[in-house]
Amino acid sequence: MQLLEERILRDGKVFPDDVLKVDSFLNHQLDTALLDAVGTEIAARFAGTGVTKVLTAEASGIALACFVSLHLGCPALFAKKSRTSNISSGVWSAEAHSYTHGNDYTMIVSKEYLGENDVVLIVDDFLANGSALNALWEICKKAGASVAGAGIAVEKVYQGGGDVLRDAGLRVESMARIASMDTEDGIRFC
Amino acid sequence: MQLLEERILRDGKVFPDDVLKVDSFLNHQLDTALLDAVGTEIAARFAGTGVTKVLTAEASGIALACFVSLHLGCPALFAKKSRTSNISSGVWSAEAHSYTHGNDYTMIVSKEYLGENDVVLIVDDFLANGSALNALWEICKKAGASVAGAGIAVEKVYQGGGDVLRDAGLRVESMARIASMDTEDGIRFC
Repeated sequence: MQLLEERILRDGKVFPDDVLKVDSFLNHQLDTALLDAVGTEIAARFAGTGVTKVLTAEASGIALACFVSLHLGCPALFAKKSRTSNISSGVWSAEAHSYTHGNDYTMIVSKEYLGENDVVLIVDDFLANGSALNALWEICKKAGASVAGAGIAVEKVYQGGGDVLRDAGLRVESMARIASMDTEDGIRFC
Repeated sequence: MQLLEERILRDGKVFPDDVLKVDSFLNHQLDTALLDAVGTEIAARFAGTGVTKVLTAEASGIALACFVSLHLGCPALFAKKSRTSNISSGVWSAEAHSYTHGNDYTMIVSKEYLGENDVVLIVDDFLANGSALNALWEICKKAGASVAGAGIAVEKVYQGGGDVLRDAGLRVESMARIASMDTEDGIRFC
């Protein structure tokens, strides 16, 4: 998606250790006009798939999920992140690992809001190694829900997490696909 | 705001210890059509005040802040919550207390995205004792930003936090104002 790629080139900052900082518009300060446009595009790609729920993870997935949800005309639902593995019986849960923060955590969603009659579109701001997305997919499987696929703002394709999930059968649509990135040569898209 | 009050009466659940559960539409599962309508109303009330930034707190304030921001045509910005008081010099921070979770935490916002040229509208899903809202206001003061006021979805008026902040000079507009609430008699609005 050209609009998003242009914005990443203009305002994204590449740091050592594979860090792409886009917090001026995507995950701290939020350019909601841009997010609405990205959400519109993701909704269009999954039109006609019968999505009943847009699932994301707190906190940085919520903004994009809201706009996708509004354009698909169904609710959004955000998984909460917990440091404890002491989880109540009223929730679906799955483990994930944060490479950014170097810790494991548990994603939880109330069983009241996700079940076997749901068709889920998973939405997130970033896809790198795929741990968070895989955990959200795991939650859908535990709930017995169908999964239409995943709509992602920025995929670091070279990290391989997206292709692992595609090979496992998940439809993944990423609006900006980064082929390579470093502090010298900058960002190259697929 | 009638639409929101009706929804609270229909789907909100009152539990002992002053708990109002609205997570079927406001802060876990999100009815984004409703949130868009509430955001439209908040934006309308602050039209013409020159707002340059909508400030909220992760995670449950983000959805409403996104819609307010979209309708005001300015960015949103969400404060992150940190358990440590070991805060970098690159952020504005303020302390808050969660009565729900019984702990203190620190709200942080990057100095890059909030400064003395900003006119801020603070947005949050809930206002009860006012600790979170006060911390967001404190952050604005530290940044030297002007504050147009606060737009809130649900205020528990009987807890008094909103009136303390109004008395201190903050314009607070709440879309549903709960006068009293208990498990026997249900919810009464102001």
